[in-house]
This record gives sequence, structure tokens and C-alpha cells, in this order.
Amino acid sequence: MATRDKLYVGVDVGGTNIECGVVAEEGRVVGRVRRSTGVREGTEAVIERIAGMVEEAAAKAAGGIAGIDAVGVGIPGLVDPAGGISRLAVNLGWRDVPLAAKLRERLGVPVFIENDVKTYVFGEAVSGAGAGYRHVFGITIGTGLAGAFVTDGAIFGGGDHLAGELGHIPHERIPNTCNCGMAGCLETLVSATGIARQAADAVRQGAAGALADKFRERPEAITAKDVSEAGAGGDETALAILEHTGRLLGEALAYVVPVLSPDIVVVGGGAAQAGEALLGPMERELRSRLLQAFADRLVVRPGALGSDAGIVGNALYAKSKA
Amino acid sequence: MATRDKLYVGVDVGGTNIECGVVAEEGRVVGRVRRSTGVREGTEAVIERIAGMVEEAAAKAAGGIAGIDAVGVGIPGLVDPAGGISRLAVNLGWRDVPLAAKLRERLGVPVFIENDVKTYVFGEAVSGAGAGYRHVFGITIGTGLAGAFVTDGAIFGGGDHLAGELGHIPHERIPNTCNCGMAGCLETLVSATGIARQAADAVRQGAAGALADKFRERPEAITAKDVSEAGAGGDETALAILEHTGRLLGEALAYVVPVLSPDIVVVGGGAAQAGEALLGPMERELRSRLLQAFADRLVVRPGALGSDAGIVGNALYAKSKA
Repeated sequence: MATRDKLYVGVDVGGTNIECGVVAEEGRVVGRVRRSTGVREGTEAVIERIAGMVEEAAAKAAGGIAGIDAVGVGIPGLVDPAGGISRLAVNLGWRDVPLAAKLRERLGVPVFIENDVKTYVFGEAVSGAGAGYRHVFGITIGTGLAGAFVTDGAIFGGGDHLAGELGHIPHERIPNTCNCGMAGCLETLVSATGIARQAADAVRQGAAGALADKFRERPEAITAKDVSEAGAGGDETALAILEHTGRLLGEALAYVVPVLSPDIVVVGGGAAQAGEALLGPMERELRSRLLQAFADRLVVRPGALGSDAGIVGNALYAKSKA
Repeated sequence: MATRDKLYVGVDVGGTNIECGVVAEEGRVVGRVRRSTGVREGTEAVIERIAGMVEEAAAKAAGGIAGIDAVGVGIPGLVDPAGGISRLAVNLGWRDVPLAAKLRERLGVPVFIENDVKTYVFGEAVSGAGAGYRHVFGITIGTGLAGAFVTDGAIFGGGDHLAGELGHIPHERIPNTCNCGMAGCLETLVSATGIARQAADAVRQGAAGALADKFRERPEAITAKDVSEAGAGGDETALAILEHTGRLLGEALAYVVPVLSPDIVVVGGGAAQAGEALLGPMERELRSRLLQAFADRLVVRPGALGSDAGIVGNALYAKSKA
């Protein structure tokens, strides 16, 4: 009898949606389930929903949960992967939730949990834009700004598994107060929220162009996607915002690259979909601030896993731990 | 017959002097030799000098070279430790020198080479201020500014073993052109050279006080040590320079700490001897720019190995590799 392919489930738990999928060993997604997270229903309900989704995806693509070798779950916030505990997830309202043990008990298969940005970068490092590179630094420009470092095929955690923080570094040209209490944090501008905020401010201050005209009466409704689309259409207000955002990010990465010497920087997250309008200025600013030895060897690439990145990263993480 | 203690030789090769010593397993220095490097005599003469010093130290403290288990040599600049090659050492005029093989052949014992800042931080991590901490980031404020990261007892090299660079990061409030060709590099101010330069500029611009009075006619002669001593005596010009230098360094470290999450930052190098006048403002600036989670757990300490740091770091590095 032929041995079956090994199959892993990846689950990406966000504040709004949960994505779940079965992934074959080489990173191919063979079955997907998506649901609203339903944070308001409480922690136990969300955990039960995750378990139900894993079973559903397994039934679809693996003949049931017995066909699954391990489950990887990515959670926002602070995670203790060794203990399997979600230590703090503000978006989910979780503190010290023993998620891995609860899911393992419920499902009867090995479950591994990690911070969602760390598993995103892990997936890109193993099977995406960073495949073949030994030292991969990745960032996600989403609701916030975060990073992670994967070296020799393992996520680098650092003290208390906190490594990779990038959003809460004060910058002297950023005046905004951050939710964290500090002033000038990078993610107040370099994030989807930050891009939207810059656009709203520009419109309020009388910016011209299609984006401004469209949102003149409700600047607070602008999203990063609107800015990105306006930029693609040549809107100068949008392009200036994306350039400013990219350059601030490049400036911050000019501290990270010499200290870590990654072989590649991978850029993902929703706001990275602005593409060249954001990533071009970012890379130019970064390279202009690097010693030749770093500039010559560094590769910068957008993430390659697209909308499957969350599922694939968490599944491959589970595979690496199983 | 009792087995003898294991003994290692550590050699610190600088542009001016070579320090060499025999070190017992627990990090105790039991024999020292010091010579001028004599860079002008050429590469072969310097290598022969290193070999002779190792033999001399071994004869003094280990009954001869046969009593030595391994030799560790720290070199400035870019080193390929796996290949045993000094790739680029500007101060020594070296490029692609197969130092480890040459010394091994000459001495008949295992020889390991590494970048001198990396072995300095390794020594502090294993046996100095960082002992007992898992993730140690260390910096040396010397002729230049450099860093290194030791995690789980091993030096982190990154791509091309370049990790730890800190001196050549442009800062927008630093106007000076750097030797590297970029403008605003941190080490143009944050280094012994940079501190001396700031003091000379202050004297030329008419600063008051004992330091300025002493060097009014020859400001170019001021050293970082003069500034440090004047600061210890309460000289306001010196104290302002040390504070400015410390704050710039703290600002840069505010990028390093969230990305790496070290348990401790160890500060060494000649200019660090200014002590609290430099390190106080550095630590305050750093902490004011950290998320609470990092500020709460971070420890900042001056190096503990003092003038033996070069010898001890290289010897313990050799021990870790032997």
C-alpha cells in the first residue's frame, strides 16, 4: 500500500476573519474554509469555530481529521509557541489562552501556534519569495507594521519571543501619537491605517485630484486600497503619500539590514499591494543608506504567496514542528 | 596522572598593538604578551609576530605550545571564520589573507579567527557582563562604532558574516561626510574619533571651560579620553558632547532592540570608559523610545572584562570552536 501524502492545516486567525486550509507538503493549498471570527461571541466560541473549520477543511481535502499530520495556527500579538499560549491578542481580546492544548484535545492531532507575522515570513522564507535564501527578513504592512526574521529555516524569537517589532519605533519626523502611548511610531504612518490617515489629512487640507474629489465630504472613509488604486491611476496626492510612506519604511530598514545582514527583505501585507509606488521609494531610500557591501548583496522582493500566505505559512510552520 | 587544565590562547590584533594571552577554561588570564603590530613590515612579518607571541605566552604559562588546546585570533574588518580568512582589514592592509591556515601550520595547534568585535561580544556574553543571558547584543565605541549579536552561545553572522554593523547608518541630524562615502554615518559622532571631533569643533567655535582652555591652541589634539576626563571633572562642554553622543546612540539602539529583542545590551570599547556621562543619556534615550514590553525586560550594562576583554573573548571563542 502506498503511503499517503502528508497533509497539514494552516489557520490564520485575524480580528475580522479566520482563514483555514489544507496544505500538501510542497505548499499547495488543497482545501479552504473562511469564516468571520466573531470575537464578540467570546474566546471559547472562537476556539470551537477554529476547531470546526479545521475539521471541515480536513473532511473536504483529507478524508477527515485522521488524514491531517499537524495543524498550525497563526494569531496576532504576543505568542509563547513553546508553551502553546496566546499571551496577548488585543484584537481578539485574549490574554494567556492555552490555545494549542485546547485545540489538540478537541482535534486529536498535533497543534502548533505562533505569531501570525512570524508564520507569514516563515512561509515566504520556505516556499515563497525567500525560498533558497538563508537569512530572510520579512515585514507586513497591514493594519499595523511588523517584521520577523527567519534564519537557517527557523523563526528567530529573541527574548520573550518579541523579536521583529518594527511598528513602534519613534521617528522624529512623525508627529502623531500612537495607540501604544509613544509619539512618532512608524506604524502611525507606515501601515494601511497610516496610509488612510495621511490621505484623509491631505483631503482635509485641500489636496486636489480624483481621490480628494471623491472623498471631499467623507475623508475618514478613505482606505489604503483607495489610495493604492488612485496611485495606480496616476493621482498625485496618492503617489506622494505612497512615496512618503515608502521612504520612511526604507529609512527604518536601513537600521535593520546592517545589524542582521539578511540575504533578502520580503515585503507583504495588504498595503504592499500598492506595489512599485510604495516599494520603489522604499527600496531606493534603503539602498541609498546602506554601505556598498550590504547594497550589493541585498535582494528586496514583494511576497510571493498572495492571498494564500496566511494558510501556507501556518501549515508549513506546523510541518516544521511536527 | 592528573589530566592538565585546558588552556587557550587569545590574540587581539589591532592596527597599533597586538595583545596575546593564555586563558584558562573559566576565563582567567594566566600569561600576557604585548607588542606593536608593525603593520609597515608587511603581512608575513605580522603573522610571524603573532606566532612568536603565541609561543612566548605558551612558554610562560603553559609549558610550551604543546600545552595549548586552541588559539583564537580577533581581527578588525571583514572575516570569513569558516574559511579562516581575513577578507578585508583596512587597518592592517590585509585582503584575503588565509590567516588561520598559516598560523595552524606554523604552530601545530588548532587556530580559529573571527572579527574582533564579534569575539569581544562573545567574551562578554560567555564570561562577562552578559553571562547568564541568552540573547546578548554588544557594541564597541572605539575608533569606530560596531556591534555584534550572540544568541544561544553562538555569534550571529548573517549573510556574508556581515551582521552587527552599526557605525555606517546615516542619521539626519549628522551632517558629516564619512570615510565610507555616505553622509551622516553614526560613527562620525558616536566613536572615540567622533567624540574628539565634536570637542575640537566646540573649542574652535569658542566653547568655554577647562577643556577648551587647555586645547585652545591645538583643538585637533583632543582625544576622547580628554573629553571623558574633563566630563568627570564637571566640564560642561565635555558633558554636553558625551550627552549628545549617548543620545544619538540610544536613538539607534531603539531600532535594534525591538527587532532583535536582546536580553541585555553590553557597551564596551575605549570611549565607553566615559561611563555614566555617556551611558546614562544613552540608556535614557533608548528606554524612552521602547515599547513597555521591551523597556521592562531590557538590561543595559557596561562591559565587565576591562582591558582583558580582547584576550579573553578570542580565547573563549577558540574554546567554543575547538
